[in-house]
Amino acid sequence: MIETSERLQAQLAFIREIDRVKGVFRQTVLMDRSRKENDAEHSWHIALMAVVLQEYAPQGLDVLRTIRMLLIHDLVEIDCGDTFCYDTAGMVGKHEREAQAADRVFGLLPDDQAAEMKALWLEFEDRQSPESRYANALDRLQPMLHNYVTEGGAWREHGVTADRVLRRNRIIADGAPELWQWARAMIADAVDRGYLEPGPNYGCEMEQG
Amino acid sequence: MIETSERLQAQLAFIREIDRVKGVFRQTVLMDRSRKENDAEHSWHIALMAVVLQEYAPQGLDVLRTIRMLLIHDLVEIDCGDTFCYDTAGMVGKHEREAQAADRVFGLLPDDQAAEMKALWLEFEDRQSPESRYANALDRLQPMLHNYVTEGGAWREHGVTADRVLRRNRIIADGAPELWQWARAMIADAVDRGYLEPGPNYGCEMEQG
Repeated sequence: MIETSERLQAQLAFIREIDRVKGVFRQTVLMDRSRKENDAEHSWHIALMAVVLQEYAPQGLDVLRTIRMLLIHDLVEIDCGDTFCYDTAGMVGKHEREAQAADRVFGLLPDDQAAEMKALWLEFEDRQSPESRYANALDRLQPMLHNYVTEGGAWREHGVTADRVLRRNRIIADGAPELWQWARAMIADAVDRGYLEPGPNYGCEMEQG
Repeated sequence: MIETSERLQAQLAFIREIDRVKGVFRQTVLMDRSRKENDAEHSWHIALMAVVLQEYAPQGLDVLRTIRMLLIHDLVEIDCGDTFCYDTAGMVGKHEREAQAADRVFGLLPDDQAAEMKALWLEFEDRQSPESRYANALDRLQPMLHNYVTEGGAWREHGVTADRVLRRNRIIADGAPELWQWARAMIADAVDRGYLEPGPNYGCEMEQG
């Protein structure tokens, strides 16, 4: 038995629990194509992207708040697993299941920190604050980059078409408009290269900007 | 070809390159003992620990600076690989090799960001600023926790003794004294439980606090 304060014990219980997110695998394939990526790796990557790409975020945004959101945004998947963002059936009831998971996982922390983390997770989900919009933009952008670099990656594996990629990821424009312009060009290039089938509504989705 | 600014191109080249750190494996075993941990997972874990354990850091510390340090501190290992911290032979010339790697990896970024990242990495290595001391404390603490939870983990695999663990990790006290007191209790408990052999200088190292 290690003697310590109840508060530190609760914090350590949380730190131990979240190790499990390293075993939650996503559809995204690593850029060297060796295997799929897990949530811990994904969260690290986008947290660092938040630093490197900060100049494309809304001015005056609190980047620490964005990073804290990104570091915790997938912890609910310890209980719920990862839902592929093009899996419309899997999306049904997702928020409710994840909210329960948030209560359990963040609930391991002392009450003040649990409440703060839960609020931060809800803020991420709500996509209203500038920090949340920027965080969500990065969360969408990173798998797209992986799919492009791996010549289709998860898009190809699941038969996702460019029109759906455009519709699904247009929210990037809310958090980082310049990065959305770049992402659109990447999608067009992926179609040209045959990494991505255009799909029936490609022209119409592209016109929407 | 995707049309974009040279600046964003350089930033994206960096973001692509750092994906490789997900393939740099450490000696640390995941808490479920399924496999060893990689640098991306480790960096994510300690970045989030920096948030959760902030109250044990020196007052007034810039936690964003600490987190930025933690997110990038292991990128040099893309070129150099991970050196087990008890591998004294592997430590020879380590800093010089890693400094070269820092020039190459951070050098992918636009000049201003490259210089800033390199300086941040050097600050982490130097362990002088409060942010760096707190960052280094977490970098040491996390593998210890994994070794404890896995009933010896990398300690046992490499025949590391408790006296060496104490000597090697005492710098935790510089960045987070309360966490060092807890870590000492954890080491003592690991010895009691037989996860860790005491080693010839255990009593003397324990006395040093």
